[in-house]
Amino acid sequence: MNTAPSTRTQVKRGANKASYDPAVLHAIVDAAYICQVAFADAHGVHCIPTACWRGGDSLYIHGSNGSRMLQCLTAQDCCVTIVHLDGLVLARSAFSHTMNYRSAMVYGRFEVVGEPAKRQALEAFMEHLAPGRQAQVRPGNDKEYAATTVLRIPLAEAVCKVRSGPPADDEEDMGIAAWAGVLPLAQARGTPVPDPQCAVPAPEHVLAWATS
Amino acid sequence: MNTAPSTRTQVKRGANKASYDPAVLHAIVDAAYICQVAFADAHGVHCIPTACWRGGDSLYIHGSNGSRMLQCLTAQDCCVTIVHLDGLVLARSAFSHTMNYRSAMVYGRFEVVGEPAKRQALEAFMEHLAPGRQAQVRPGNDKEYAATTVLRIPLAEAVCKVRSGPPADDEEDMGIAAWAGVLPLAQARGTPVPDPQCAVPAPEHVLAWATS
Repeated sequence: MNTAPSTRTQVKRGANKASYDPAVLHAIVDAAYICQVAFADAHGVHCIPTACWRGGDSLYIHGSNGSRMLQCLTAQDCCVTIVHLDGLVLARSAFSHTMNYRSAMVYGRFEVVGEPAKRQALEAFMEHLAPGRQAQVRPGNDKEYAATTVLRIPLAEAVCKVRSGPPADDEEDMGIAAWAGVLPLAQARGTPVPDPQCAVPAPEHVLAWATS
Repeated sequence: MNTAPSTRTQVKRGANKASYDPAVLHAIVDAAYICQVAFADAHGVHCIPTACWRGGDSLYIHGSNGSRMLQCLTAQDCCVTIVHLDGLVLARSAFSHTMNYRSAMVYGRFEVVGEPAKRQALEAFMEHLAPGRQAQVRPGNDKEYAATTVLRIPLAEAVCKVRSGPPADDEEDMGIAAWAGVLPLAQARGTPVPDPQCAVPAPEHVLAWATS
């Protein structure tokens, strides 16, 4: 399962960190709320962050029908990148310093998700953001759904790169009397902040936020 | 200070969230350890995460001389993006949900940083990662510096987009009995993890990590 699906997903540098395992890819996508989408238009190359979620073997994004990015994406291949930074890796020599991370790059072309799959996809997005919340809010109406485009890209042509663990100094640097190790970084959840105009008690998915 | 420096940095959607203030841009870059660089080559558009730091009015990246990305970047314009996700914004209607974030997009072309500025830039990078550490480790030797390319891009053609605060439901949705507010997210520092082979006591910059 460690064979690149295409030329552009073949990792050349740090190839020992590469993975083409769908389980690794799915875990990286599922841990993300946003991705970066790189594409080109007449003004050059752009890299735009946008919310994302996974459905089966596809990554989904959404936006207004008027979005220039969404209009571009069905007409050309693009690159979608997700990265989770897990720590700074402090080595005994300056040039052996590195970072721990989990990253995924997905190549391919987005396609428009039509009805009724569009509604199901947006409900899945809400479930990804706040499990159980869909039933508590005003659902989208026909006008809102009609003004919104949902796109999906297959998670087929993709590559992950993962580094974890302690520094890897060269043998001749192991005697240097510098502290070596990892300074961990992680995405942390803070205490929910109610809207000042909200008098509704926090539901289960909000109460569970900071502790889950 | 809220005038776009170019056509491609002119925000069309959510223009009220756009900022062209250098102080906002500098704060977003300084809070980042990594950026995403979007560029194109014969295989298409790519979006590659890489470490970054700021020096004056430039953003710096580095890598091996053999890096295909670094070789491409001095021959074409690119887009560098940084995003910090600050929270999920839960509104009373499904389609008013959004996220709080601070993002920056920088357009332009990287240039090679020559000696002696290259050494100073890499020392500044170490200072960004771990203040005070430079003097404790084995510094780079001539061979290591020679094998490394440092690039910088001006922070001139750039746009930031920032959202913060509570949800903004439409007036007619304010009576809906759903909890509304923000589920905060932040990059958190964990307890330093010493290399199992390290017997050196943690220095000040390591002790300060989890509490600073």
